[in-house]
This record gives sequence, structure tokens and C-alpha cells, in this order.
Amino acid sequence: MNEIKIFSPATVANVSCGFDVLGFCLDSVGDHMVIRKTDKKGIHITKIEGFDLPYETELNVAGVSALAMYNAIDVDFGFEIEIYKNIKPGSGIGSSAASAVGSVFGMNELLGRPFNKTQLTEFAIKGEALASKCEHADNLAPALFGGFTLVKSVSPLQILEIPSPDDLYATIIHPQIEIKTSESRAMLPKEVALQDAIAQWANLGSLIHALHTSDYELIKNSLHDVIVEPYRSQLIPHYDDVKTSTINAGALGCGISGSGPSIFTLSKGLETANKVKEAMQSVYSKSGIAFDIHVSKINTEGVKII
Amino acid sequence: MNEIKIFSPATVANVSCGFDVLGFCLDSVGDHMVIRKTDKKGIHITKIEGFDLPYETELNVAGVSALAMYNAIDVDFGFEIEIYKNIKPGSGIGSSAASAVGSVFGMNELLGRPFNKTQLTEFAIKGEALASKCEHADNLAPALFGGFTLVKSVSPLQILEIPSPDDLYATIIHPQIEIKTSESRAMLPKEVALQDAIAQWANLGSLIHALHTSDYELIKNSLHDVIVEPYRSQLIPHYDDVKTSTINAGALGCGISGSGPSIFTLSKGLETANKVKEAMQSVYSKSGIAFDIHVSKINTEGVKII
Repeated sequence: MNEIKIFSPATVANVSCGFDVLGFCLDSVGDHMVIRKTDKKGIHITKIEGFDLPYETELNVAGVSALAMYNAIDVDFGFEIEIYKNIKPGSGIGSSAASAVGSVFGMNELLGRPFNKTQLTEFAIKGEALASKCEHADNLAPALFGGFTLVKSVSPLQILEIPSPDDLYATIIHPQIEIKTSESRAMLPKEVALQDAIAQWANLGSLIHALHTSDYELIKNSLHDVIVEPYRSQLIPHYDDVKTSTINAGALGCGISGSGPSIFTLSKGLETANKVKEAMQSVYSKSGIAFDIHVSKINTEGVKII
Repeated sequence: MNEIKIFSPATVANVSCGFDVLGFCLDSVGDHMVIRKTDKKGIHITKIEGFDLPYETELNVAGVSALAMYNAIDVDFGFEIEIYKNIKPGSGIGSSAASAVGSVFGMNELLGRPFNKTQLTEFAIKGEALASKCEHADNLAPALFGGFTLVKSVSPLQILEIPSPDDLYATIIHPQIEIKTSESRAMLPKEVALQDAIAQWANLGSLIHALHTSDYELIKNSLHDVIVEPYRSQLIPHYDDVKTSTINAGALGCGISGSGPSIFTLSKGLETANKVKEAMQSVYSKSGIAFDIHVSKINTEGVKII
């Protein structure tokens, strides 16, 4: 096998009460990539479609993660990478993570899987760091492992795979506005009230239990964010309206995807997820802001060969 | 049935990363109580052995929780309560919770179980509030439900029963010193660093997952408290020595039980739990401070008829 085509999925990080640690993987939106073994040594990006991204390996997220892996192996050949990008950079659904994950996953397959998924995450973190200026794995972990993941720690890297009920669907709206990561980060308080922190970890502990026990009502009761949402939601137009209308439409919860501007919801069943989509459309149609909406089953497989 | 004898267990609250929400139930230490239906209406405490506690119903924790239930029912008889107290008040292993739970559990049995365990917790909270000046259920919930419990919220009261592996044992040392609750509370910071809060909820989420999956290594990796332990451990003599020596003896984790002064550890297997006991003894024997040590399987049943 000298060439492989892969699907590298979009992901939702933070998941309300799971700020900075929890994420889940989407099914219906992601990038396609082709990874090819070549006689020419090194990592070469030969095609990029969809969005305007750099071809220089060291300046491209997929290139940097590929290089991190390439430097850890000793081979007399190289790799070409073609990127067919569907996830808009800056959308808040793990665009850079999909790129970072895709190249290392594809290379690992072509090499006969010398690395496990945690090791692949370590390489991908280097690519992610190029985009987000810090080493984190909230989007990488669900993209690689699929399903829900809890990044217990980054150093050493510890990723837990959390089970989730079969009938769980996400609906995500991506308002086409730009939020500067620097601005989104600067909004976060350095200190939080102990009482708020306790409420947040009660909810996260409860959410992990609810995912294990397929308790949809408890998922609903746990999907609250008292720490970050009050700040970051201010950057997303009509956030409160989307939240109210999607909850009224039956969503279990609604929160900011990553650092925004995308807004995610979780629902029990496709029918409700589609009603939630209509509720989102109804709010944003009046706004004059362009938007995309995705409805997706939780992707329990993660990045895969297609 | 007009009379019932019960065992009301000691409990460990907080459990390192689960500050204010998590608790577990002990097997080898607890109070005995006798609850008796009487022609005389009202709640009457007729016997107290073990420790010097008030006989006035309204001033006694078991009495106050019993009254809360009694006022919610309409019967033409009353109840007598005998308390054989083994758990020293102020020890940090749920002494007041055992009293508050015992009376309402026993009365409920004699009445034919009109109330579920969450409702019993609501009554017991009134008794607990007499002792601790605030309404909380961290010790009540494990005493009533057994095993590990997560109190997701107090108002409305939401208690989750978390499974735990079969071979999990606690070793608890109770140094015979007094820590004033007011002092212990005043030490807590009102605000905490966001990064610390994130570490704490990563650990709690991870611990809930580890308990579900019987992953002892992950239990060990999760039993850390970066928020409260640095403050409250200062009030407990030789805390750091106990921690170091018990971890070296094989304990999965070591932390402050409730607000102290008791220190708890969790271990895989009775043999290790006993080695941990020796390690604790070795530290405190040299200290000149009197102490008790309990080794206990996790009590998955909670308060019970004997």
C-alpha cells in the first residue's frame, strides 16, 4: 500500500462543563486527505483545496505534525500530503486538529501502524500548537479516538475514552464570523469563584456518569458551563436566542464549541437533532449573518480510511 | 414490627478531587441505634451512650432529622431513639451524618418505607445542618445509599450512585486532635486559579470513569486535590509524612477525610490496606498524639438493619 485516502473528522471541544478536557467527534463533517509514500525523502504538501493554506511543510499544521512523526522514524522514503479541506479554519470545530491528525494517522497506516493512538496524538500536538500557539489535545483526542474523550493531562499525555449512548446526535451551527483566538483567550478569568468551580466539577463528574449509564436526562442536567460560557458567549451574536430556542426544541444542552464561534447542541435521536437545526436556522436566518449547520451522529470511530 | 436496631456507617466526604460532591461509605465503623414506635407522640431520645450529646430532640442531630420526617407524616404514635455512638463527633468521618441518617432510616423502616432514599436525605439534611451550620449531603448520601455517591446538587437534591470495584479498601487514621470547623472553613480560598480548577475537574471526571471501569491505576492517577489539600493539610500534624508513607506502602491515594482531622487512603486489596495501616501507625506512634485507625471495605449497602 503506497497511497491512502482518509476522512479526518471535525470535533467539538470543551462540551460545556468539560472545559479544556472533554471533546467529542463528528461524523458528517471533516476533511479528506491523501497520504502517499514517495521516493523523495521528507514531507511534501502537494495539493490543498477548499481553503487557502500554506504549502510550506513547516508552516502547515498537517505538515508540522507529519514532520514530528517523520523525525521519529528512520526510513529511506518520504510522504506527500494532499489536503481537501472542508472544515473552515477558525470555525471552532477542530479544523487544525483534523489536519494535524490526518497526516499522522495516514502515515502510520502506510507504515504498518508502528504507533498507537496516544503516540499519534503526541505528534499531532506539534501541528496543533502551530495553529493555536499552545499544546493541547481537546480536539485531537476525539478526532483520533472517536466518541467522547477526556484529556486527563497533556504532560504526560493521558487520554480516556468515555462511552456514550447510541442515540446521541449533535447539531452544530457555524456563524460565519471571525473570533480572534487571542481575544477569546483574553476574556477568560485567571481566577474563578470556588463555588463556581465546584458546580462545574459536579456537572462534569455527573456528565461522565451519565455517558457511562446512557442517562439522557442526566446528560441534560449536566450540560452546564458556569465558568466560561458567561464570558465567551458575548462574542457570539444571538447566542442566548440560539440556546433558548434549541433547548425549547428538545436539545439536551447547548454550548460553545471550542472557543467559538460555532455553537453545539446534543440531542437524543435524529428527529430531535433536526428540529434543533430548524430552531437554529430560524434564529440566524433573521440575523443577516451567513451560517452553516451540521447534524451529526457521534462518530465513535474517529479518523478513518475511506 | 415496633422496634428496630440499625447500623449507621461512618463515611468519607470530598475524596481528594471530589471536594464538596463526592463521598464513600465505610463498613467497619459506625453507630448503632435503636428506633422504637411508642404510644406517646413526638420524638424522644431515651438513651445516648459513647459520647456526651444532648437529649433535647431539637438540639440533637438525630432528633432534628427525625422531627423533620415526623412533621411530614400524620400518625397517632411517636418514636423513641437510642443512640450508641461509636463515631467521635468532629473526627471528619461523618459522625453527625450517621446520627442524622440513622433515625430517619429506622423510622422509615418502621413506617413501611413511605419515603425513598433521596427523601430520607432531605430529612437528614436538617439534622446535618444543626451540626455543620449548613445544608450539605456529602456524608449523608454515602451513609444512606452506600458505595460512592456524587451529590450533583443540594437544591434540588440530586444524588448519583457511582459504582466501584470490588476489591477497594479504605484505611483511615483519626488523630485525636480538634479542628474547629470554623477555622477549617475560613482557610478555604474564595477564588481559585482557573488552571487549578481545570486540573481538579479533569481528575474528578477521570475518577468517575475509573470507578466505572474498575481501573485501579487510573483511580491512583486521579486521587489528587490541588484546591483544598494545600490549605487544610496544614491543620493536620504529620499529614505529609502520612501521605508519603502510605503511598509508598501501596495506597492508591491519600487525602483529608471531610474537613479533617481524619486522613483517608484507598487501596487495592485488604493486604495493601493493612500495610497502609502499619505505615500510618509508624508515623503517628512517634508523634505522641493519640489516634484510631480503621481498615474497611467500601460499604456498598449503607445504613442497615442489624
